[in-house]
Amino acid sequence: MVTPLMILAGVLAVGALGYAFTLSNRIEQKSPGTDEMQKIARAVQEGAMAFLRTEYTVLSGFVAAVAIALFAFIGPETGVSFLAGAICSGIAGWCGMRVATKSAVRTTEAAKTSLTDALGISFSSGAVMGLSVVGLGLLGVTALYWVYGRPELIFGFGFGASSIAIFARVGGGIFTKAADVGADLVGKVESGIPEDDPRNPATIADNVGDNVGDVAGMGADLFESYVGSIIATMALALTTFAAASKEVQDNALIFPLALAAIGILGSIVGTFFVKTNDEKHVHGALFNGLLVASGVVIVGTAGLTVMLGLDWGVFGAVISGLVLGILIGKTTEYYTSEQMSPAREIANQSRTGPATNIIQGLATGMRSTALPLILICLNIYLAYTWAGLYGIGIAAVGMLSTLGISLGVDAYGPVADNAGGIAEMAGCDPQVRQRTDSLDAVGNTTAAIGKGFAIGSAALTALALFQAYRAEFLKEGEIFSLDIMDPMVTIGLLFGGMLPFLFSAFTMQSVGRAAKQMIEEVRRQFREKPGIMEGKDTPDYASCVTISTKAAIREMVMPGLIAVLSPIVIGLLLGPAALGGMLAGALVTAVLLGLFMANAGGAWDNAKKYIEAGDMKDDNGGTIGKGSDEHSAAVIGDTVGDPFKDTSGPSLNILIKLMCIVSLVFVPVFVKYGNKGGAKVVTKSQIEQSVESPKNPLDGDK
Amino acid sequence: MVTPLMILAGVLAVGALGYAFTLSNRIEQKSPGTDEMQKIARAVQEGAMAFLRTEYTVLSGFVAAVAIALFAFIGPETGVSFLAGAICSGIAGWCGMRVATKSAVRTTEAAKTSLTDALGISFSSGAVMGLSVVGLGLLGVTALYWVYGRPELIFGFGFGASSIAIFARVGGGIFTKAADVGADLVGKVESGIPEDDPRNPATIADNVGDNVGDVAGMGADLFESYVGSIIATMALALTTFAAASKEVQDNALIFPLALAAIGILGSIVGTFFVKTNDEKHVHGALFNGLLVASGVVIVGTAGLTVMLGLDWGVFGAVISGLVLGILIGKTTEYYTSEQMSPAREIANQSRTGPATNIIQGLATGMRSTALPLILICLNIYLAYTWAGLYGIGIAAVGMLSTLGISLGVDAYGPVADNAGGIAEMAGCDPQVRQRTDSLDAVGNTTAAIGKGFAIGSAALTALALFQAYRAEFLKEGEIFSLDIMDPMVTIGLLFGGMLPFLFSAFTMQSVGRAAKQMIEEVRRQFREKPGIMEGKDTPDYASCVTISTKAAIREMVMPGLIAVLSPIVIGLLLGPAALGGMLAGALVTAVLLGLFMANAGGAWDNAKKYIEAGDMKDDNGGTIGKGSDEHSAAVIGDTVGDPFKDTSGPSLNILIKLMCIVSLVFVPVFVKYGNKGGAKVVTKSQIEQSVESPKNPLDGDK
Repeated sequence: MVTPLMILAGVLAVGALGYAFTLSNRIEQKSPGTDEMQKIARAVQEGAMAFLRTEYTVLSGFVAAVAIALFAFIGPETGVSFLAGAICSGIAGWCGMRVATKSAVRTTEAAKTSLTDALGISFSSGAVMGLSVVGLGLLGVTALYWVYGRPELIFGFGFGASSIAIFARVGGGIFTKAADVGADLVGKVESGIPEDDPRNPATIADNVGDNVGDVAGMGADLFESYVGSIIATMALALTTFAAASKEVQDNALIFPLALAAIGILGSIVGTFFVKTNDEKHVHGALFNGLLVASGVVIVGTAGLTVMLGLDWGVFGAVISGLVLGILIGKTTEYYTSEQMSPAREIANQSRTGPATNIIQGLATGMRSTALPLILICLNIYLAYTWAGLYGIGIAAVGMLSTLGISLGVDAYGPVADNAGGIAEMAGCDPQVRQRTDSLDAVGNTTAAIGKGFAIGSAALTALALFQAYRAEFLKEGEIFSLDIMDPMVTIGLLFGGMLPFLFSAFTMQSVGRAAKQMIEEVRRQFREKPGIMEGKDTPDYASCVTISTKAAIREMVMPGLIAVLSPIVIGLLLGPAALGGMLAGALVTAVLLGLFMANAGGAWDNAKKYIEAGDMKDDNGGTIGKGSDEHSAAVIGDTVGDPFKDTSGPSLNILIKLMCIVSLVFVPVFVKYGNKGGAKVVTKSQIEQSVESPKNPLDGDK
Repeated sequence: MVTPLMILAGVLAVGALGYAFTLSNRIEQKSPGTDEMQKIARAVQEGAMAFLRTEYTVLSGFVAAVAIALFAFIGPETGVSFLAGAICSGIAGWCGMRVATKSAVRTTEAAKTSLTDALGISFSSGAVMGLSVVGLGLLGVTALYWVYGRPELIFGFGFGASSIAIFARVGGGIFTKAADVGADLVGKVESGIPEDDPRNPATIADNVGDNVGDVAGMGADLFESYVGSIIATMALALTTFAAASKEVQDNALIFPLALAAIGILGSIVGTFFVKTNDEKHVHGALFNGLLVASGVVIVGTAGLTVMLGLDWGVFGAVISGLVLGILIGKTTEYYTSEQMSPAREIANQSRTGPATNIIQGLATGMRSTALPLILICLNIYLAYTWAGLYGIGIAAVGMLSTLGISLGVDAYGPVADNAGGIAEMAGCDPQVRQRTDSLDAVGNTTAAIGKGFAIGSAALTALALFQAYRAEFLKEGEIFSLDIMDPMVTIGLLFGGMLPFLFSAFTMQSVGRAAKQMIEEVRRQFREKPGIMEGKDTPDYASCVTISTKAAIREMVMPGLIAVLSPIVIGLLLGPAALGGMLAGALVTAVLLGLFMANAGGAWDNAKKYIEAGDMKDDNGGTIGKGSDEHSAAVIGDTVGDPFKDTSGPSLNILIKLMCIVSLVFVPVFVKYGNKGGAKVVTKSQIEQSVESPKNPLDGDK
């Protein structure tokens, strides 16, 4: 059955893709600069695309196997949805990477003439990524819902997206940090050559890594949140409005799609407001675009609310989600920006050496979890008060509605970063580097904000998926307690809470192993080809790219399998109550560890930049800058922060979403084959106690 | 009403105190060594006692205020119980510290003649601490239960113990690490003088710190676990056996007291088996004592089970707790010992500098959470299967039953450490130092094991207290859902999960601030009295002790208040469901963060020791030892680990126990004044859904 709102969603999804295509074409028509620049850009592009090809080849086997299993055990529709989700996520990643690698060199070239043009190209590149994600996401969900007509048949779409996301995030994160740490430790520290120096064999791999991690990895992460939140909310509409009229039910079911469509419209409109020629206003220009998009969503949602006759509480939930997204970004900015006291205090603690720098960074990361958590709690409270469980899902969709532009803002960073790298390697005029640096500095801030946004949206999405998980059991006629006092739930809670710690340990050690190989390769090249350092010999860039690629592919398998298999194993072995506890436990620690790691890493990074900028003074007013002991201490902190903020931290977002969606998809299997029971009980009174106790505290009439 | 088993408990409690007194007297009769040694020992003792006096003076105000509030709002019995708990914990700490500081110098003197004598004195000192804790704990609980006759009237005893514990742990942890970091950074790193060198002004403070943190702090922590687990289990007996006969009920109620009494007997017997004259068998001798004590408990519990006609499932729960305690200790040993691969791998990663050392240490700490968590889950499963909720409490009591000797093993470490310090400062024969070092090395391992044990027992105790929390509400006729899907519970879960992160951030930064003051003071003394370094001038030890004392007292207030106040505020503001969620969330992250921090810290410490022992080789087989770059990197890791393992990590044990017991004590207040409701609900179907859903999964007959 097709409704006008579904057509609107489909049209705007296609519109997003069309606009992305136009932007991409416009970028390609820009000049790619000198031969030297093009040569470097080609190396980065080939490395990035080669990584994606290898990754997709490995994943296609996994995807095919899972699709067959789903086809057999859950149903053909879920198998098809899964394939569609995996393919859409893959295509979005491919498009984003392709345009990002093409845009970097054109941004460098444009920076020769003006900042406006350079910003225009790099931001357009980000927008292509953002619009591809929302366009393919909304188109996929709408089309599948049109064909199958029931939300539970499209859970597989989210599962497909998650499967790609976990491997893309983990693999990309390992690739980028292995290259980064390898390039820095041998190049900058041991050989004393600057960042992005063409004599460094790992420099191309480092630039490839920015794309692989921050463009493709981030894109896949948010693609998953985007479709996951929409699907979960549609499922929750059925339970929340079970007693309402058919019309209200249908409207509630379609509303998330319509909201996403309005968000696309807002994002497209917003892109026209991102313009400036003043280096100081780059951040402001990007923020303007986001505000315009949010404004369109607010007005549009109000209109929809009236049109569909929905409760204004639903409108309130949308707004609360939108505001949460912006506020979480702001708190992240506070804790990580070198303009603010937390990062400066870390820089200060470098005066007594690396140990105190690191203690302060760890403490800052831990402290930085408080505000975002309180904001998320407040959001849950408001959304639930205003629109029930459905409201929690709607808040997530509202937060992600402007993803077309907010992901654009986020994904522009690596393009600006790469543009600077190309300017350095090709020996461009210092003014060019200065312009790309001013874009890059803002990119670092937006990247930190983007990480906070990604964690916040993952938390809400996971929560909505989690609610849908039990709603599915209820539909199957299976009812179970998720009372924390039930020892099976407690066991799940503790076990689930442990998983993010174990997962982070794995990914951190993967980076360590991969970086070690990279260090050895760079050292080998310097040793065997002494001409490299004198500029007479060309380093073998490709071998470094290959090392990072192979390591990333090898190391992503184990964590990915843990994430996919643990909910299935626990669900079958210990039953749905323990699995529910596990999801809740994992949610709590993943959000906290994710914020801790991302913010600590960002703060260490900017503490180092603060010292490098020469803003730290000693007791006599002299500058403590690059090359000082304090700077070395800060570099050590930054290196510890690298896997924190770019590998382990961001992967946790996907871990929880993936585990929730796997649980959701496998509900029919758990119902059929799973262990339903738990431990036996010693006395009757206990059973009575747990049966009588869960009176709903929410009706408040005690 | 007095039963024979209560008399047994009282007699054995008094027996423990009597035996502790005898041991203490025997220690005092040993020779305290030369005048020089006595002078140093006196300085340490005076510093330690001065700290305790200051701490107790500050706390007496707090304790009086809380006692009055409890008297007024909860009832006079709870006020009296609270006072008794605080005073008993305080006395136990005082006795332990007094004997520990007296024993150190006598251990040094005894080491001049034989290892057996030195081990005898240092272990006896630990045993005095252990027996004081169990004696006062069991005596207090038994006496109060004899007077009041109802478990809920003695919850206050646990609260009193917790209040002292949180301040003792946090304050002691800050004291010891401020002194340690200050002594190391200026003494060892800047001035290049060895550890425990008498020229270092902070060296006395460092030795005082070992007593303040590892004796008094650890003792207060486990005193709290000990009484908390007994009280919670007594409360759970009432609900689990509500439907049973009066006789079974009474027996179940008394059983934890009887079990604790048997444990005291076992501990006393065990102390006679701790004897060796072989340096290699010190660890084995200590472990023998523990095994003998466990054997006595197993036999005695079997006898009790038959005598009281209890289900053998209860016996099973006791055994599972005992075994868990030993196994958690073993996993901690694996992850932290320099004999094992995790610590060695950290040492290896020092080859590429401090950053990789720290990344590896963090990853090791995270990975090390998995096994203990799985063991705890398994224990919950077995105890619950065998004996219901009561079983979970009983497992905790079983685990802690041998505390008299296991705390003795733990508290002997700092005595051996101090003995070595005195030998160094007084310039004793190298053989003396060698003997104390061999005792100290084992002490480091037992300290790490003790930390794992403390966390495991805290987890089970908190879980039992948490179950008692809801049981109290049920008794008051208040029933509420603790379903994780209930958004109020979810909010509590997320908020509670965040608290241990915030708490750790506070305590880590406190150490940083206090250490900075210490560094400045030591630098000042070296600058103003150049004669110190030449050995011509005496440093001002007392000023360093004063700095650590003042800093510890000042910095312990804020975290302590957060711990006491947050459950009260959340309980009153958001109601019992949100508070229940908060306790569960805090439990999960506190256990995980606690294990992560304690094990990472222990592993860094031993990685450094592994390098210092000269066991690490380079590619050509040469030794990479003290003074190498690798060693410097490992020292940085160790310094980061200091607040992890000795301040923040251990404080989390108390945080969760304290929050649970505060919630439990304040149930009557929540019932009277608290918010009972939550958010309102949008549709009726939701209420129906949550009311019908929590069918007990445990009856397994669906």
